[in-house]
Amino acid sequence: MPSHFLYRPIEAPSRAYHQLALAKQQQLTKPAGSLGRLESLAVELAAHQHREKPELDSCHITIFAADHGIAQHSVSAFPQAVTQEMIRNFARGGAAINVLAKENNASLDIVNLGTIERMEELAGVSQLQISAGTADFSQQPAMSRNQYQQAVQAGYAVGSSYQRGQVFIAGEMGIGNTSSAAALAAAILGCDCSTLVGAGTGIAAAQKVQKQALIETALQRCSQLGELSPEQWLQQLGGLEIAAMSASFIAAAQRGVSILLDGYICCAAALVACKINPGLQPWLIASHRSQEPGHQLILDELRLQAILDLQLRLGEGSGAALCIHILKQACSLHNNMATFAEAGVSQ
Amino acid sequence: MPSHFLYRPIEAPSRAYHQLALAKQQQLTKPAGSLGRLESLAVELAAHQHREKPELDSCHITIFAADHGIAQHSVSAFPQAVTQEMIRNFARGGAAINVLAKENNASLDIVNLGTIERMEELAGVSQLQISAGTADFSQQPAMSRNQYQQAVQAGYAVGSSYQRGQVFIAGEMGIGNTSSAAALAAAILGCDCSTLVGAGTGIAAAQKVQKQALIETALQRCSQLGELSPEQWLQQLGGLEIAAMSASFIAAAQRGVSILLDGYICCAAALVACKINPGLQPWLIASHRSQEPGHQLILDELRLQAILDLQLRLGEGSGAALCIHILKQACSLHNNMATFAEAGVSQ
Repeated sequence: MPSHFLYRPIEAPSRAYHQLALAKQQQLTKPAGSLGRLESLAVELAAHQHREKPELDSCHITIFAADHGIAQHSVSAFPQAVTQEMIRNFARGGAAINVLAKENNASLDIVNLGTIERMEELAGVSQLQISAGTADFSQQPAMSRNQYQQAVQAGYAVGSSYQRGQVFIAGEMGIGNTSSAAALAAAILGCDCSTLVGAGTGIAAAQKVQKQALIETALQRCSQLGELSPEQWLQQLGGLEIAAMSASFIAAAQRGVSILLDGYICCAAALVACKINPGLQPWLIASHRSQEPGHQLILDELRLQAILDLQLRLGEGSGAALCIHILKQACSLHNNMATFAEAGVSQ
Repeated sequence: MPSHFLYRPIEAPSRAYHQLALAKQQQLTKPAGSLGRLESLAVELAAHQHREKPELDSCHITIFAADHGIAQHSVSAFPQAVTQEMIRNFARGGAAINVLAKENNASLDIVNLGTIERMEELAGVSQLQISAGTADFSQQPAMSRNQYQQAVQAGYAVGSSYQRGQVFIAGEMGIGNTSSAAALAAAILGCDCSTLVGAGTGIAAAQKVQKQALIETALQRCSQLGELSPEQWLQQLGGLEIAAMSASFIAAAQRGVSILLDGYICCAAALVACKINPGLQPWLIASHRSQEPGHQLILDELRLQAILDLQLRLGEGSGAALCIHILKQACSLHNNMATFAEAGVSQ
């Protein structure tokens, strides 16, 4: 602590290519601004990619999976075994993200940072097993320093494997991880945790009250520790997969890679990452707004506007994968529409 | 008047396939409801298509184009010649809808119902030339009965060419046609036209005031004619392309075809069509909410929820085409995800 590579500077997207792309949009055969968000997305990608014609060279999804000690308090509608069962489902191609990765021609890798039980080898899954999930963060730090550093290094290695022109999506799987995300968001945003705790996988009202009480206990515990840095918050309240995601985003942005954010947990990881390294922000694209009530608060703090709002709350990177085609179409319109001059259309 | 074929009954989507699809969604490896709108879209398409595994067999876009007499009052940011210029741009493949049709593997046809000048033959364009645009609806009926009937027959023929399993998108092009759409919406919804008049292609505030005054004049004129039927409103205030779109929707729904609606003008046509034949409603899917302020009012009356909100205001069917991939992904998730039993995941 701290992890020095996370603080390496992140270059801003190209102002010159941003301006060129803006000027090009004005020449296309449509009323100015009539393609709305598709125009700004194309301009943003041009600035990320340092080229006049932005394209998605390739899209890469990595799912970070881990278990959470907090899950022993029944904060989820599903048993903790589901983390491992879903990792097997990812490996066999049966989950939503498998379908969406295939539909969108994106690569899909799984990194298991630590499930409560050690897992067998599975094709496409890196079994890191840093620990048997995190500790119960309502009672003690979620991770030891060493566990935190290993999670960060694993995520950083993933983010470092991409390059400019590519799009990176981080997905997550971990029963109990909306509790961790809500706790981190409450700590960083400094707002009441009742605004940040939602139904997760679909819990009843009484469970939600308990989930909220556990987070308040955790925040109370942390308040004894003095002022905490963003990395210290991650170690105290995060999941192994959340710490890995935060690091992966910073590594990707340091390499000029566009990051398409998924939902609540993913954005909580991005929120902490932006506090660690504020240069990350212009590399983030918010794919969708989830049904978790706290998601919009995080998006506001990140100054991001979600592209889709389809009442999703699945995770796995599914909302981001669904959005790939919107980015592709934004690029294709930017690159392939005729200009007023070419088409002989009056302006 | 009236056009009898428009009143032929429209069968409701299959209740049995709706129930089967709902039950299937509950078995897929995800928290119930966590794919939000994607779940309801798949269920809706299964009910439209009478099959357990909904698929988009093919998507078909027809752009209906025509000129508007009201355009002589400078209600648009563009000169009237742009209708013809854009028809040529469609034929040469340079417009937004060409790019989106190609990206989504959809067919694209153009029907020119009547531009102010007669046009040359162009590949992919049916040059019907029913009249040299409509008359100025602020002063007189937009169409004669005969012109109206020809427009309706042209649209009905297009809608009749599709079959169950296909998706139909109607696009439009016609300088001045947001004025016609706003007038029709005001007439049918019975609300103040100030809530229905927007910036269209991007007009200034003073032009917007004039646009509103012209519509009020037209509604005043029509109030002298006694109670008007939906078809009579179309003849009085519609465009040739709007009348054709209304008829195309009814014809498609009579054949069990899913209709993916574009923006404001398209939805105004659907609004009138639903008043002509209310059986149309369950066959409509709203692709996006446009920047025109009146669009949401029409969607509310149609009891439709837009899938996308990307601040589009282009028309041409562009918002609907952009949405094809969302429908495809909804179907693919429904058809290809593993069930809890198949994957051995705990429920």
